[in-house]
Amino acid sequence: MQIIYWSEISAAKRVQILQRNTSVTDEKLVTVVKDIVANVKAYGDKSLYEYAKQFDKVELNDLLVKKHEYAVIDKLTVEEKEAVKSAIKNIRTYHEMCVPKCFEYESNGITLGKIYRPIEKVGLYIPGGTAPLVSTVMMLAIPAAIAKCKTKVLVTPPQEDGTIAPAILFAAKECGIETIYKVGGAQAIAALAFGTETIPKVHKIFGPGNKYVTEAKIIVSGCHNGAAIDMPAGASEVLVIGDENANARYIASDLLAQAEHDIAAQVVFVTTRRELVEKVLAEIKSQTECLSRKHIIEQSLQKSVVIIADSLDECFTISNFYAPEHLILHLDDAKKYLSKVVNAGSIFIGQFSPESVGDYASGPNHVLPTYGYANMYSGLDVSHFMKSISYQELSLDGLKGIGKTVINLAKLEGLDAHRNAVEVRLE
Amino acid sequence: MQIIYWSEISAAKRVQILQRNTSVTDEKLVTVVKDIVANVKAYGDKSLYEYAKQFDKVELNDLLVKKHEYAVIDKLTVEEKEAVKSAIKNIRTYHEMCVPKCFEYESNGITLGKIYRPIEKVGLYIPGGTAPLVSTVMMLAIPAAIAKCKTKVLVTPPQEDGTIAPAILFAAKECGIETIYKVGGAQAIAALAFGTETIPKVHKIFGPGNKYVTEAKIIVSGCHNGAAIDMPAGASEVLVIGDENANARYIASDLLAQAEHDIAAQVVFVTTRRELVEKVLAEIKSQTECLSRKHIIEQSLQKSVVIIADSLDECFTISNFYAPEHLILHLDDAKKYLSKVVNAGSIFIGQFSPESVGDYASGPNHVLPTYGYANMYSGLDVSHFMKSISYQELSLDGLKGIGKTVINLAKLEGLDAHRNAVEVRLE
Repeated sequence: MQIIYWSEISAAKRVQILQRNTSVTDEKLVTVVKDIVANVKAYGDKSLYEYAKQFDKVELNDLLVKKHEYAVIDKLTVEEKEAVKSAIKNIRTYHEMCVPKCFEYESNGITLGKIYRPIEKVGLYIPGGTAPLVSTVMMLAIPAAIAKCKTKVLVTPPQEDGTIAPAILFAAKECGIETIYKVGGAQAIAALAFGTETIPKVHKIFGPGNKYVTEAKIIVSGCHNGAAIDMPAGASEVLVIGDENANARYIASDLLAQAEHDIAAQVVFVTTRRELVEKVLAEIKSQTECLSRKHIIEQSLQKSVVIIADSLDECFTISNFYAPEHLILHLDDAKKYLSKVVNAGSIFIGQFSPESVGDYASGPNHVLPTYGYANMYSGLDVSHFMKSISYQELSLDGLKGIGKTVINLAKLEGLDAHRNAVEVRLE
Repeated sequence: MQIIYWSEISAAKRVQILQRNTSVTDEKLVTVVKDIVANVKAYGDKSLYEYAKQFDKVELNDLLVKKHEYAVIDKLTVEEKEAVKSAIKNIRTYHEMCVPKCFEYESNGITLGKIYRPIEKVGLYIPGGTAPLVSTVMMLAIPAAIAKCKTKVLVTPPQEDGTIAPAILFAAKECGIETIYKVGGAQAIAALAFGTETIPKVHKIFGPGNKYVTEAKIIVSGCHNGAAIDMPAGASEVLVIGDENANARYIASDLLAQAEHDIAAQVVFVTTRRELVEKVLAEIKSQTECLSRKHIIEQSLQKSVVIIADSLDECFTISNFYAPEHLILHLDDAKKYLSKVVNAGSIFIGQFSPESVGDYASGPNHVLPTYGYANMYSGLDVSHFMKSISYQELSLDGLKGIGKTVINLAKLEGLDAHRNAVEVRLE
């Protein structure tokens, strides 16, 4: 990890240090993904079977996961099942708190209000990879269920033997998902956005993915008749702030948990204490030795950075500028610093709040804005699976009261028929 | 207006009838806009001055509206000013109701919560055109102010004499906007997304515009280091449902108010009553004669459609499938039908609730999803100018309670360092 003294570098260097790897916008990738999207749009299921062969190395007979395939759930241990169920319970409780509230009020004969309705058809993307992302199933399916989305289509790449991991099937079933399709990558996003013979077209697509998936999401969200997306997510990232009494062992474990995600994962440690840095680096070294994903960790830590700031205020300035997906506060009386956070996806407060608790089981969503998008995007919650609709009802008296204002504004904008719609009612 | 008996046409024809004009995705337009975006990114202010000459037919000396330019506000009448102020008051009241609520709860040593923070830098786009869109100024600037966005940059194309309309300046000032730049079109969107020497880069861009503006918004929202956007808006549209006791005169005035917006505006009238259709068409004919935008109205009505359905339930099925930006219910006891609406931007209930009241002055936002986007997007409100941040704080006991669940899930996903982050704390 590179060590930077914040006060010693130029403004330009500071921006550069906190910049994300921008390789995601590479033109070659865009061309490849555009091609995949166009093929799925043109050839539907046929292209999905072909891509399964090409990318997932599997010859599929069917895209839909059949009833009998759920039998593999029995392979899970009681403990594993209990862990999933317990996490579901917590995630459900948190997301029920997030249900947006309708309102209505009346004033001078004008009733105004707002209602929420589920997005009728949603697509949930669960990435493949070395291990089944059972937690992402829960993080997408639970808010979709609470929002009461009618059609919930889950897609995930098949394993090389053509099956879906038991844990994915179990979590999906427990969260009320009834249809799962074996399709991943950019082709899955295209299938959800435009529909195929088998896969229904949805209104909005949710879920994280690799850079092909992200690019496909961006492309289909820009197409009329495509689909909306939750957010353009990138590689996962954490920023940890630690002060003099912080536990170096815990900090190191948090940095490592982030680093193991992916070689593209970003890890930033900000502190006012040089001596803490030494301790954390030593801990990183010793803890890494026992971790199975050591090779990934070592690569992601190479691009990672330790920043030594002059004050805690400066730590928060740095953090807000970086706008981390995850922010962990290893500070005395950490909660009082909540007011200093402006840009972040999710905050972990104090020494007993490791990010992995939030990733899996405590309740808040783990689909969070990366790549600086925490400046303007929120982490997923129930409201993203719904839309709001405003409404108004005027009595004749209500219209009489506001009529003159509307007529004058319509005149100002030169919109005659707008004025007329009020006048015919007041004649 | 074309008259369709719903029960007499095929499913394919139904889809076609309710389809929007898809010319917005034309490739030529995309190329033109990409070019503009690339130029602004490369040449900054210089390109903005050039585009002002090319598109707005004006040689500007400065992009920023200077203090002395606000003197033209005095040209407004007292009545005009009062109308703006009165609308601001109502819009503010409604949007204050929309401020999203933070929450926090504790359970078994785990405190969970959610806070909201303003998006720090926002760009507000006010279209130009034949008349000053003072209402759009209010609809963007008021929620931005309530959300407490720090930097609010308003851009709008200059008139041919290089000035900005007095009403725009007045409304902006009354809504707390301090910086206005004379720049419009795709070039304005690019300037906001990437910044220029004069115009600050923002995190999110709001506001309606023509197809060049919309395409530019889609492009910059797909660029890393670009900006988020409110929604991909298209031409304005209304769907009116009327039953036997509906007032044909009022219905006609509502259809006309929509039709005058733009020749691309979409107007759909759905009813179970053939005899009402005749009356409405006669009213449209006679009211149109007295309207100044008759030429626009006639063109947009040419593409518009009247649908005769078998039942009120079918009317709502049609409306929900169309997902109109504006839905007007000319029904007896109209409010009871609210529960039947699934997809719509904003609903106008009963005979005394013309859309123009909502467009200007009653309170709800008039920046609404068009083009079928009401299936998955909401109309603007304060929450779009903010982002939510989840947080969690565990006590040692809290971590002990949930630790096993987290460890088991981390094992299931093969994420060793995630497990380790919990274990080091529980040792």
